[in-house]
Amino acid sequence: MELTILGCYAATPRTFTNPTSQVLEIKNRLFLIDCGEATQVQLRKNKIKFSKINHIFISHLHGDHVYGLIGLVSTFMLLNRTNDLHIYGPKGIKEMITLQLRLSNSWTSYGLYFHELESTESEIVFEDDKVTVKTIPLKHRIYTNGYLFQEKIGEKKLNAEAMKHYQIQTCYFQNIKNGKDITLDDGTFIKNDKLTFEPIPAKSYAFCSDTVYNEAIIDLISDVDVLYHESTFLESEAALAGKTMHSTAKEAAAIALKANVKQLILGHYSTRYENISLFKEEAETIFPNVLLADDGKTFEI
Amino acid sequence: MELTILGCYAATPRTFTNPTSQVLEIKNRLFLIDCGEATQVQLRKNKIKFSKINHIFISHLHGDHVYGLIGLVSTFMLLNRTNDLHIYGPKGIKEMITLQLRLSNSWTSYGLYFHELESTESEIVFEDDKVTVKTIPLKHRIYTNGYLFQEKIGEKKLNAEAMKHYQIQTCYFQNIKNGKDITLDDGTFIKNDKLTFEPIPAKSYAFCSDTVYNEAIIDLISDVDVLYHESTFLESEAALAGKTMHSTAKEAAAIALKANVKQLILGHYSTRYENISLFKEEAETIFPNVLLADDGKTFEI
Repeated sequence: MELTILGCYAATPRTFTNPTSQVLEIKNRLFLIDCGEATQVQLRKNKIKFSKINHIFISHLHGDHVYGLIGLVSTFMLLNRTNDLHIYGPKGIKEMITLQLRLSNSWTSYGLYFHELESTESEIVFEDDKVTVKTIPLKHRIYTNGYLFQEKIGEKKLNAEAMKHYQIQTCYFQNIKNGKDITLDDGTFIKNDKLTFEPIPAKSYAFCSDTVYNEAIIDLISDVDVLYHESTFLESEAALAGKTMHSTAKEAAAIALKANVKQLILGHYSTRYENISLFKEEAETIFPNVLLADDGKTFEI
Repeated sequence: MELTILGCYAATPRTFTNPTSQVLEIKNRLFLIDCGEATQVQLRKNKIKFSKINHIFISHLHGDHVYGLIGLVSTFMLLNRTNDLHIYGPKGIKEMITLQLRLSNSWTSYGLYFHELESTESEIVFEDDKVTVKTIPLKHRIYTNGYLFQEKIGEKKLNAEAMKHYQIQTCYFQNIKNGKDITLDDGTFIKNDKLTFEPIPAKSYAFCSDTVYNEAIIDLISDVDVLYHESTFLESEAALAGKTMHSTAKEAAAIALKANVKQLILGHYSTRYENISLFKEEAETIFPNVLLADDGKTFEI
């Protein structure tokens, strides 16, 4: 997995900072998560191929997470996209986008599918042979979901030494990777575990923004490799965090600790702070493995 | 008058170019014309005070002219704006903006007034003691208006020599500027034209984008000081211009010539052209006074 932060600042786009959007690449699939204003410009700046984005997950309908979506949908049209595009987000997102298309007398050249969400329980919203995506119900001022991306266990790795030793022909390799035992031409039976190593452990990524401190998410995100948790404020503004239903860096770290995640990435910083390193310092008083998101930054998971 | 180009490229925002938006300053009033995606970022980059914008004129509901409006309306909210904001644009613009506010459960802290247009005849949409704004009905794929901004004749200029000669007290100055004659304490009667010079001629600016070549606008815009006319294409793409209901640089120049305008500014360039100086060259074969709009450029009128 590779995570690219297109924008990770709260509230409004500014000259040098962008509202929330990120691209998660899993085994050559690109998932776009949230789509603040001018996300399409950030995609260009980060040289991400528009045509590889087939699934967009929107957390909630506040502007700094969704106002770039109509522009992206329109630009896909101008680029003569033909692939289907799937958009996952709160109920209302379909009306928001289709009204604007209707008023501009524009219709997409490609299949545009909306998957509107309204459940307050976690549900699987996407699944294929490589990846499962589940919602993480969050608590914010309006209906909001985070998303949990889980790789499926991959195929086993061939033991090159064993292949050579038993002189196994390449036409059997895929069956062996899939876990099958094998019988050689001379009748020798070989168990699969003599021929393979265990697959690379499946990775998982949890995106949680925007949300107030909420222990109800801990079970869902426990043991993930990387948790992106919003930290709009520092503890010095804890009252404001509560009032606006956002989290502080310390609260994000407390969730990371209780969920036993391997790595915490902070983001969604209020633009009132000049120096985002204060968020890392504050979170590290609670949880050791903290990284700071910043626009244009890429993280290997 | 001073015109600042925030964006003047067609279709989509890109890394270094922006969709249509411009700010016209007339006697300390700021008028925003069109509002493509990320216009609020361009306002910041060009150091234009958000709080001075009270009137926004939208030509039509294609994305590259309006998708930045909801973001700007929202940001005004976050900045705790209190002044009324007036938005002029095609019928449907109110629903477009209010639906998005409703879905984000956000309401403006300030008065938000929509003036929806549907007439195909020119009409006065704004007037105060300094400025009149009229629509210029244009022909495009959807309902579109340009806007004609006309300064009203200003007050007369005092003749400083005459003030000194007749020893006129400052308390009379405003009456004299307003055109009144005056009687001195010794009974001498002095006609106003001995005390003043004629006011600085009123300026006018016509914004015409997007539109196919359309001679019907010539009467409305005749003799204006500055005409901004779209030139999406060069003559080499004239067929495409006709099909998409845009103009070529040569057609923009032909309108400027027939309307006897003083200065033509070209803009709304298709992003297919690497070198926009070709637009100027082509227009100058028809009309001499051609300038090229570009993002961040300012023109004194």
